[in-house]
Amino acid sequence: MAEELVGNVLVGQSGGPTAVINASLAGVVSEALNHECIEEVYGTLNGVLGILQEDLIDLAAESQQVIRGLRYTPGAALGTVRYKLKKQQDFERVLEVFKAHNIRYFFYAGGNDSQDTADKISKLAQQQGYELRVIGVPKTIDNDLVVTDHCPGYGSVIKYISTTIREIACDNAAMGQHDLVQIVEVMGRNAGWIAAGAALAKRRDHPHDAPHLILLPEVPFSGEKFVEDVKRVLKRERYCLIVVGEGLVDADGNYVAAADKTDAFGHAQLGGAAEFLQNLVEEGIPGVKARTVKFGMAQRAAAHCSSKADNDEAFLAGQAAVRAAVSGQTDKMVTLIRGDGDHYSVETGLAPLSEIANGVKKLPREWINEDGISMNFQFFRYAQPLIQGEVAVPYDNGLPSFAHLDKERVEKLLPAYEI
Amino acid sequence: MAEELVGNVLVGQSGGPTAVINASLAGVVSEALNHECIEEVYGTLNGVLGILQEDLIDLAAESQQVIRGLRYTPGAALGTVRYKLKKQQDFERVLEVFKAHNIRYFFYAGGNDSQDTADKISKLAQQQGYELRVIGVPKTIDNDLVVTDHCPGYGSVIKYISTTIREIACDNAAMGQHDLVQIVEVMGRNAGWIAAGAALAKRRDHPHDAPHLILLPEVPFSGEKFVEDVKRVLKRERYCLIVVGEGLVDADGNYVAAADKTDAFGHAQLGGAAEFLQNLVEEGIPGVKARTVKFGMAQRAAAHCSSKADNDEAFLAGQAAVRAAVSGQTDKMVTLIRGDGDHYSVETGLAPLSEIANGVKKLPREWINEDGISMNFQFFRYAQPLIQGEVAVPYDNGLPSFAHLDKERVEKLLPAYEI
Repeated sequence: MAEELVGNVLVGQSGGPTAVINASLAGVVSEALNHECIEEVYGTLNGVLGILQEDLIDLAAESQQVIRGLRYTPGAALGTVRYKLKKQQDFERVLEVFKAHNIRYFFYAGGNDSQDTADKISKLAQQQGYELRVIGVPKTIDNDLVVTDHCPGYGSVIKYISTTIREIACDNAAMGQHDLVQIVEVMGRNAGWIAAGAALAKRRDHPHDAPHLILLPEVPFSGEKFVEDVKRVLKRERYCLIVVGEGLVDADGNYVAAADKTDAFGHAQLGGAAEFLQNLVEEGIPGVKARTVKFGMAQRAAAHCSSKADNDEAFLAGQAAVRAAVSGQTDKMVTLIRGDGDHYSVETGLAPLSEIANGVKKLPREWINEDGISMNFQFFRYAQPLIQGEVAVPYDNGLPSFAHLDKERVEKLLPAYEI
Repeated sequence: MAEELVGNVLVGQSGGPTAVINASLAGVVSEALNHECIEEVYGTLNGVLGILQEDLIDLAAESQQVIRGLRYTPGAALGTVRYKLKKQQDFERVLEVFKAHNIRYFFYAGGNDSQDTADKISKLAQQQGYELRVIGVPKTIDNDLVVTDHCPGYGSVIKYISTTIREIACDNAAMGQHDLVQIVEVMGRNAGWIAAGAALAKRRDHPHDAPHLILLPEVPFSGEKFVEDVKRVLKRERYCLIVVGEGLVDADGNYVAAADKTDAFGHAQLGGAAEFLQNLVEEGIPGVKARTVKFGMAQRAAAHCSSKADNDEAFLAGQAAVRAAVSGQTDKMVTLIRGDGDHYSVETGLAPLSEIANGVKKLPREWINEDGISMNFQFFRYAQPLIQGEVAVPYDNGLPSFAHLDKERVEKLLPAYEI
């Protein structure tokens, strides 16, 4: 056991929200209150931006009802951020704020960019001899963090997508009097994890169930093969349900539907893969109608259809972060480790933030069938446990009732900071 | 009580599927089996097309488990159709098939085009002196059938949309560090019933909740006013969530995003209203990002998020159709009649098919606020009861488990018919 470190907690959320990032927040807050060495539990509004601007709230002042409600609330209750700390001055400011509020425990939920930020904050604190324990909480629907078996947020997005694919399939199969092509565009910039998850919609021993084609960024796209694949499926099924990841690339590695915009991290802003395919179908197969569905941000916010396994693990990851920090760990991210047994089990581990920060976990090529448009049993074995169980979202007057934080502000102690 | 008419039932489904049209089918089948005058219960595959081709199945041979499962299964289990009976010869063929199989009860679930077809079949039977009782079962997410207070299918689609809007709002509100415009496109060709339903996502006494702008076909669209509205909301909220019906029209009554395609009934095939608005925003408000969501056919298939009130009423409408026919009624459609009391209640009635067939119920202009972009208390009072209650969709291995008919074919008795 490390020496006891007495002080305050700060927790923040970063990057794109998920259906369960607030479950991790609930895990951090409820666990933090179990430890006497932790005095105050603060949240930063909009991640690092709230730290720079000293926009902190007192999470211990929130009602227990609200903290419990966070488990079922999508979005990021503290607000999130895509602002990237760039200047050395920004990092210095973070530490000033931490010192001013005696922050000794910093928990940051996010993907690899966010863990990189947490790592840099941690390193600077070490350089300055300021005792600070920094633990990252994994969060991303993209499932692309290295070391961890999977990421909280992923199970829920693929449960929602495969549920909806199964529903659309019932609808489209019923309309089999003219050839119908349905194109469903899902998120996934660099890897096909999300699109691959749609494969779960197929019933066991029903290989002809939708989705009929899954187009992944891992498999270079060929328009000719695509049109032939669609024709073959239409001949058999009278409808063809296609799932496409937004990051689909051609043989040269260029996005098929690239826009010229980029986000704050320099990533290309995508969109339009579905319309791209729609045009190919309607031009390549005369008389066939193609329709598109684009879940957009709805897919990462679908708490009403989230996975209980995912929700439980997100909560667990928040708790584990606090326990690790209290026991003396720092500069690590919580990971999920899958047990070896026949029955799915998971426990938490830790990995260095620096290792997480800049890695990207690709969908294994050997989990994709040779046809390049479907997933094999290895993927099913991996993904099936992640969507198990339904979450009892509380309903009020016919709609999910989500938690809203009171956000009692912590008094500012420092002069304002120019962003 | 009319004279007892002994014979067989034929039930069919027509038009776009909904989350609850199979609940109506379950209502017809389970009620039919209660009446001794009904001998066989057949279903036609793909509506009138299955009649022309004598593609009938024996619904009494299906397991009770499957019939129960229909209550929670989206799509149209019998298959649906958009084929329109045109020639007199087609109608003659329908009656030939009815006579060959001693069909004395015909139940047809669909919207106004389908009720028109049912009406014409009924009239021809009367002309020919063939005793046949025809009762329509209302079905349409569009909620545009006249006489009936509302249509089975509508409550579920607006429950799904308002649930999802509330979720996207949690997500987008969390990202309030740069101005974000979110545009959600929903179905609704001629009327704004579906888009209006998104208003339910607002919590009581939270007028600033999303959706911030609802764009309805009933209110001629002005690009200038739209951009000003978006700017105003962004200033206040930092994000602006817009719901747009696909049938948005300009001051001249032209679709803002009209394509040049038409369906079998001559209706314009729409799509692209969201992208139209996205361009207006990005050109009109420099630096602002606009994102789109398009539920497409997912919205009418979302059984996992369907309304219990709607599901129960769809089942009831199926039962009521059978009871009406057995009691001697014909050439009518089942309607839903709302009770007068403070508490919502509904009972079924009947209206002439001819009255339903070619009417279209518009969203009352006086239910739209003067701002033209939000709904008033009259709409809330109307729509709120329709989304109450959640349906216990059975889950298996993490996903909804839907019913699939065995489809035991009825022996063909007539020569093939050329379509």
